[in-house]
Amino acid sequence: MSEKKKIYKPKPVSGFPEWLPEYRAVEQRWLDKIRAVFESYGYCSIETPAVEELEVIAAKGEDVDKEIYVLERLQADPDEKKDARLALHFDQTVPLARYVAQHFADLTFPFKRYQMQKVWRGERPQMGRMREFTQCDIDVINVDSLPLHFDAEVAAICYEALAAMDMGRVQLRVSNRKILLGLLENIGVKNPAEILRLIDKMDKIGLLEFKVQLEGTTEKEVKNAIIQFVELSNAVKENPSNASGLLRDFIARNDVIARSGSDAAIQMMNEGIEELDFVLKQLEHLGDGVVADLSIVRGLDYYTGTVYETQLLDVPEFVGSVCSGGRYDDLAGSYINKHLPGVGISIGFTRLFDVLRQAGKIEPGPKSPADVLVVLPSEERRDEAAQAARTLRERGMKVELYHAPQKVGKQISYAEKKGIPYVWFPPFEDGLAHEVKNMSTGEQTEASPNDWTI
Amino acid sequence: MSEKKKIYKPKPVSGFPEWLPEYRAVEQRWLDKIRAVFESYGYCSIETPAVEELEVIAAKGEDVDKEIYVLERLQADPDEKKDARLALHFDQTVPLARYVAQHFADLTFPFKRYQMQKVWRGERPQMGRMREFTQCDIDVINVDSLPLHFDAEVAAICYEALAAMDMGRVQLRVSNRKILLGLLENIGVKNPAEILRLIDKMDKIGLLEFKVQLEGTTEKEVKNAIIQFVELSNAVKENPSNASGLLRDFIARNDVIARSGSDAAIQMMNEGIEELDFVLKQLEHLGDGVVADLSIVRGLDYYTGTVYETQLLDVPEFVGSVCSGGRYDDLAGSYINKHLPGVGISIGFTRLFDVLRQAGKIEPGPKSPADVLVVLPSEERRDEAAQAARTLRERGMKVELYHAPQKVGKQISYAEKKGIPYVWFPPFEDGLAHEVKNMSTGEQTEASPNDWTI
Repeated sequence: MSEKKKIYKPKPVSGFPEWLPEYRAVEQRWLDKIRAVFESYGYCSIETPAVEELEVIAAKGEDVDKEIYVLERLQADPDEKKDARLALHFDQTVPLARYVAQHFADLTFPFKRYQMQKVWRGERPQMGRMREFTQCDIDVINVDSLPLHFDAEVAAICYEALAAMDMGRVQLRVSNRKILLGLLENIGVKNPAEILRLIDKMDKIGLLEFKVQLEGTTEKEVKNAIIQFVELSNAVKENPSNASGLLRDFIARNDVIARSGSDAAIQMMNEGIEELDFVLKQLEHLGDGVVADLSIVRGLDYYTGTVYETQLLDVPEFVGSVCSGGRYDDLAGSYINKHLPGVGISIGFTRLFDVLRQAGKIEPGPKSPADVLVVLPSEERRDEAAQAARTLRERGMKVELYHAPQKVGKQISYAEKKGIPYVWFPPFEDGLAHEVKNMSTGEQTEASPNDWTI
Repeated sequence: MSEKKKIYKPKPVSGFPEWLPEYRAVEQRWLDKIRAVFESYGYCSIETPAVEELEVIAAKGEDVDKEIYVLERLQADPDEKKDARLALHFDQTVPLARYVAQHFADLTFPFKRYQMQKVWRGERPQMGRMREFTQCDIDVINVDSLPLHFDAEVAAICYEALAAMDMGRVQLRVSNRKILLGLLENIGVKNPAEILRLIDKMDKIGLLEFKVQLEGTTEKEVKNAIIQFVELSNAVKENPSNASGLLRDFIARNDVIARSGSDAAIQMMNEGIEELDFVLKQLEHLGDGVVADLSIVRGLDYYTGTVYETQLLDVPEFVGSVCSGGRYDDLAGSYINKHLPGVGISIGFTRLFDVLRQAGKIEPGPKSPADVLVVLPSEERRDEAAQAARTLRERGMKVELYHAPQKVGKQISYAEKKGIPYVWFPPFEDGLAHEVKNMSTGEQTEASPNDWTI
């Protein structure tokens, strides 16, 4: 016994979640489903190290800021030549870019990969913000140009992956940034970043407040065009199947666009509309599961075409987008002199799981993966019990063999506590048969380990 | 194009391995197999965060040394109250101990868990030594006492897990530390640590060199008893099925043991023999796959009974034990005032995988998980091709739909490059049937997406 020992009572580390076995079982089942959907479209798995060189992250032009964790050896070895500084990755995009650049010659393009790993961000932990969390990402990268085919494919995959978990209705919202960027250029907006930020907030603040905040940011005519676009975006939400019709109509009839504007800007808008149209058409089989939503902005510079967000319609507890992404022009230009456009989506898995868990919307799984508990009748009958367990296992079942010849009631109650659905009784005396008890019905029948099935 | 951009050419980070997709596919298949074996015995999965508080690691009495990586925020937030220092875990035993102590009230005992995660050690990288690697651990923990049943069970599980990968013959070697510790106490060895270290090296240095190095470490009589034990240990290797007979004989006939020695020490040896006997008997069904090996030492203090090592008999490239462990008296005494004995084994997965890969003993997998590539005949026939792909997917197949209506030869060669075993041709004209080509036989036949099977 350790009564004299000093005890350090451990406490949860804020922002680093971990689950009890019954929730881990659900998490694992969901991750398996996501993986199965990713693979059903032929995306291959990669894993990258937890760390990247700090220089790699800096080269990508990311904000190398206070969210990044760098590694320090607790006691540095003075004899060792100074290694590069290593930082934990904070997403899977920088690692993907570095991986593609580094292994370029060994990859087959279009490179379709998925990646399901933990990432780390030294944020101040708060509800729904974590310092360690799992992301499930898929991306396709190609050399020089990437068919629009993939803009639809990654959307379908993420929709299916989310639908595979039991969270009610999923709605994937798609837009194309060329439309909004073309518009802002066309109508001569001088401060597009500010306007984009405002449009991004639209859903939260509502149209009235949007108009108030827009006041004074830009000149009147431009302002009106933006308000008309936002109204159009609402109209598209009402009637998503006619998105491109409404858009073309808007361009043709809008005063400001007609008067001002370069051909290039109008060309950009039209490209955006055509691309959005193509993507929506490929996703028609998903019905209401996929809609156009022109108010999607997704950050300021990264995405250049299709953009996605996803809403869980039956989970009001989940604020924001559970799965987002888009098309980008150049994945790895910081690391290799190749033009590598891509498109990808990322599921913020851990936040999703935790919100649902805290909302009581996840039914905990069993505490044991076993299908069957084999009872140990007595020390003398250990061989027979062990043999029954082995036979059932060889036939594909998951089987616990009870660890000591305790009272049968105690053994059965162990199965109950662990959520094991069947209890197997090897013969307690010579000449008797094996029996198996269904724990949910209470029914007990004779059975043979050689041919019994669940 | 990014020709004017500054390029930072990334290089591999020493000690942090990553694989190309075709090797990752194999790694994943192997990890799936290990997991399936662990679960087939009813062990549940847990995952713990990548980090522990440094104080947790220090409390466990581990050497908090230069191998440990601590996290530092790149830019600390001066307003934030000082958080605890966090360190990346360097094994899965400290996290398990902390987890069991922290969640004690919510766990069902015996607690049978497996854990397959990455761990980090800031070692100087060298052949076979990594700074990041995956371990696959199983352990059983119980309150106050733990049946010997589990000493056999975890051995069987690890044997099966290793045998599930195709690496030729696996040999699990078992001993019980009580035998050797009892002997050393019995014959009055004053420097057991030194002697244990020497016995541990026996396999490498051979009996002759062992005798030379033993010279001068201890008095003559004691030395003779140790040499006799080492000779006995070799005899047991020759005739492992009679381990306990040889041992009992040794104790009964040994001069030094007979003359010197406390009853307690002899009692300890006998206990060790009985325990070893029980474990070996439970593993008889594995034949030569499990043998007694009295020379196994496994460190100095941690293990208190059964100890395991595992050799790959057909992989001479792999030096040392691929999978080791044993029984310990008290898992979490540093964190909770409970007596929690346990037994566990750990597979050093990444080193194993890397050694086999470098030795050319791993056949790379395909670059795509897809079973079928559906050809895209033309833009006009996209819907039909997409529908065929969806139907095959719904029927459980993994399917890539080719991304552009390029020449058929180009599409087929993509399937070849990615290792996709079947190519599907939707009708190229109205009235034609679907066809499917087996890429390994070249055979091409008519088929329907609704009932074709691989």
